[in-house]
Amino acid sequence: MSEAKVVDKNAGGLRGQVAGQTSICTVGKAGSGLTYRGYEIEELAEKATFEEVAYLLLYGKLPTQAELDNYKQRLRSLRALPSALKSALELIPANAHPMDVMRTGCSILGTLEPEETFEQQHTVADRLLATFPGILCYWYRFVTYGQRIDGYTPEESLAGHFLHMLHDKAPNEKHKRCMDASLVLYAEHEFNASTFTARVCSATLSDFYSCITGAIGSLRGPLHGGANEAAMALIEKFHNAEEATTGLKAMLERKDKIMGFGHAVYSKYDPRNATIKAWSKTLSEDVGGQNLYAISEAVEKVMWDEKKLFPNLDFYSASAYHFMGIPTPLFTPIFVMSRITGWAAHVMEQRGNNKLIRPSAEYIGPESRPYVTIDKR
Amino acid sequence: MSEAKVVDKNAGGLRGQVAGQTSICTVGKAGSGLTYRGYEIEELAEKATFEEVAYLLLYGKLPTQAELDNYKQRLRSLRALPSALKSALELIPANAHPMDVMRTGCSILGTLEPEETFEQQHTVADRLLATFPGILCYWYRFVTYGQRIDGYTPEESLAGHFLHMLHDKAPNEKHKRCMDASLVLYAEHEFNASTFTARVCSATLSDFYSCITGAIGSLRGPLHGGANEAAMALIEKFHNAEEATTGLKAMLERKDKIMGFGHAVYSKYDPRNATIKAWSKTLSEDVGGQNLYAISEAVEKVMWDEKKLFPNLDFYSASAYHFMGIPTPLFTPIFVMSRITGWAAHVMEQRGNNKLIRPSAEYIGPESRPYVTIDKR
Repeated sequence: MSEAKVVDKNAGGLRGQVAGQTSICTVGKAGSGLTYRGYEIEELAEKATFEEVAYLLLYGKLPTQAELDNYKQRLRSLRALPSALKSALELIPANAHPMDVMRTGCSILGTLEPEETFEQQHTVADRLLATFPGILCYWYRFVTYGQRIDGYTPEESLAGHFLHMLHDKAPNEKHKRCMDASLVLYAEHEFNASTFTARVCSATLSDFYSCITGAIGSLRGPLHGGANEAAMALIEKFHNAEEATTGLKAMLERKDKIMGFGHAVYSKYDPRNATIKAWSKTLSEDVGGQNLYAISEAVEKVMWDEKKLFPNLDFYSASAYHFMGIPTPLFTPIFVMSRITGWAAHVMEQRGNNKLIRPSAEYIGPESRPYVTIDKR
Repeated sequence: MSEAKVVDKNAGGLRGQVAGQTSICTVGKAGSGLTYRGYEIEELAEKATFEEVAYLLLYGKLPTQAELDNYKQRLRSLRALPSALKSALELIPANAHPMDVMRTGCSILGTLEPEETFEQQHTVADRLLATFPGILCYWYRFVTYGQRIDGYTPEESLAGHFLHMLHDKAPNEKHKRCMDASLVLYAEHEFNASTFTARVCSATLSDFYSCITGAIGSLRGPLHGGANEAAMALIEKFHNAEEATTGLKAMLERKDKIMGFGHAVYSKYDPRNATIKAWSKTLSEDVGGQNLYAISEAVEKVMWDEKKLFPNLDFYSASAYHFMGIPTPLFTPIFVMSRITGWAAHVMEQRGNNKLIRPSAEYIGPESRPYVTIDKR
């Protein structure tokens, strides 16, 4: 790189630069707000089911009871995996990253049931929404227990369907409701890195599966979707709240990276935290997890006292998932099961008013130079 | 969408906005220039082999003879596909889009040979470079002829290896050299949409396979990588040069979209065109394709006379590939075999000075509104 060149330290990241228009979501208004199509996330998480929110994101309005019933019925009818997809999932080793399983499952489904025209986009979105839990659970149960599940459950909701397949038994009502709320909270977040990936891909007029496959790849990154797994690893380090307080202070002194706190867009608090924290507390009491919950609260207190950093959605999602018996490596794939709704809405929006996304680069490389033949190097 | 809102017609596309720094490539300087690490594309296409260019892009300098020999030997040693990947490719149907095969093959390889740490990034890049021809040809020969190829050829170069596997016979020297030049020409092009996809993914610190899988998905789009296939479809419409002249004028009058002409960044001419046009002419004489070549020239002339649009790289690549006996649906996957070098260089560069790529959106959706319970909708 040229030493003489003045380097713009703010270059890169596109922070604050407008990459397009959206009518889907606002993030960080007044430092804390999050709305899906105008509705506040706090109200949606309290009052709406995930299927209602999926409909809202994908079709632009809250469904009537008849529309919701039809939509849920349609999603249930789309749950079964094609046999070639199941065979392919069996080829993925047990030690694979579950996000690589999601990415690959999505890509393979795109070869088996391709999107031939954009008129099929709602069908493909619904199909992916309906099958992601099955893709994860089919692979997980096969590589963990050698079982080939048929993927049928009597569960009405996607949240219940996932928990039922994962544990091979009917989930209790609280677990279903917590998972449902979690799916609502993770569903959409404007131009985050994975959604932006989906839009960049969509803007070449590529197919739906390519957009979602790319988005999964971006969500896999530890700076994006991996934070709830990192939060779990953190709280599992400590045996009790006192140890967490002391241990976390020592980590902060060593300048260790602590995941699950603060946010690039929210400056005051994460509007999604209160809901998931309440669920974590409720489930902890149910399953005898009060100690882990107390550790989480101790971590939260130290982060606020020492750094004025608030917990984001990922932090209490970790303990809530843990209390539902979900293995930590499956946390980020749950994010996929939810965010597919936001990604899909953005792909459709991009297609509706498309312009190829093609930014510029600041060149800092060597000046033009003549080729040197290989014998003279 | 709100009617009252003033909509910025230039929003979207990030045209002219700097998304990061690069020392890999310049595009469009003085309306026509293209350099890879400071070397002009015209010189590279004439004097360098694809493996030299791959080394230049991935390691930042032209290799010495010993370095090049080692590099080519390493690439040859990495050609064989793991058996689980071959089994998975056999599950992909014959009518699948070959770009979906590339995307899926890359994703599956990431589950079988994951990148555990970024120190492995050069190994993964070399592995993908070495295996993409095999991924395509294994699937193609299996679904077309029912053959399970072993993927071994005595060919030294990637260009020769691909042609040999595809046709199951040693390619002639001119075909090898033309394919090699084509791979050089397609290798790198700054922050185009697929490369930018790879960088957005890379900036979440996701793994190498995720970045490349996403890039393939974006390249698949007809506004990006699909243009050479569209150019082939165009020239195949006509039986001779006269018919092409008349027919194309009629198409222009109907305002049909003509692919393979003009360029978003180049304003005067595409610096890659002369090389591939010369190869197309040479091969046409070899295989008795003078009529198709004359049709291509007739199309070029009409586009210039009527629209002042010049052929871009995609236009004469189409006929050149055709003269080598390559089926049209495999054209864009050849782009992948080449561009993996540029993508890989950009992933490494992004990782070397990383900042999460997270732009903003202009919100044009509904104002904040209260939730309405389902019985009141």
